[in-house]
Amino acid sequence: MTVQNDNAPGWIEEIAWSAEGLVPAIVQDAQSGRVLMFAWMNREALARTAATGEAHFWARSRQRQWRKGEESGHVQQVTELRIDCDADAVLLRVEQIGGIACHTGRERCFFRRFEDGRWIVTDSVLKDPADIYGR
Amino acid sequence: MTVQNDNAPGWIEEIAWSAEGLVPAIVQDAQSGRVLMFAWMNREALARTAATGEAHFWARSRQRQWRKGEESGHVQQVTELRIDCDADAVLLRVEQIGGIACHTGRERCFFRRFEDGRWIVTDSVLKDPADIYGR
Repeated sequence: MTVQNDNAPGWIEEIAWSAEGLVPAIVQDAQSGRVLMFAWMNREALARTAATGEAHFWARSRQRQWRKGEESGHVQQVTELRIDCDADAVLLRVEQIGGIACHTGRERCFFRRFEDGRWIVTDSVLKDPADIYGR
Repeated sequence: MTVQNDNAPGWIEEIAWSAEGLVPAIVQDAQSGRVLMFAWMNREALARTAATGEAHFWARSRQRQWRKGEESGHVQQVTELRIDCDADAVLLRVEQIGGIACHTGRERCFFRRFEDGRWIVTDSVLKDPADIYGR
């Protein structure tokens, strides 16, 4: 499925897409309420997310769309999709398959907390990334 | 307090600042776990947030720093500050004074949910913005 600007559904065009055609996406665990990760979506990633119920994003560094979990199996099943007041950010509540959202093998990407002028790692690695990605 | 690139503390420089010198900031209610809002910070906003314990942001539209609640009184007292694996997003847990984070007078900015191809307003206005901002 390819979504073009000129034929995207109205609900997609209600979003205040950035100049690069992206919108920030916050992913929250539906059970624990923990914020798992932050990523970006383009129109196609959002359309696929809505159509399939699985989270899709746009990888800015690799300039390509990706389905979360396509390599790791750590798919995110979307239970709720929200938009903010300015329509320039989306919020996904998800069931995180495998209980691991971060490529480091941790539950969430936000595993460092600010303490006394430093970022302290608070969460342990649940699975070795080498085992997740088979490298 | 003005924070320059060349004298910012190390923990601030660990952040992968965008080309515009900004980082996305997700704000989550410390009690309910609800994601309240999404905004941007520059170095100074983040430094002030850490120094004062109150959330500060960078308003891209107005090109100025703002202290959340400076007009409304709806200050956000930060209980936890986190950074993600790529150091390109921050997460704040806050005590939301007044129980209203959104300029529309709602608890949170993410008050619209995607349903059957439309964005549906799910949260009611708790206080008339005219009463909040005295306009």
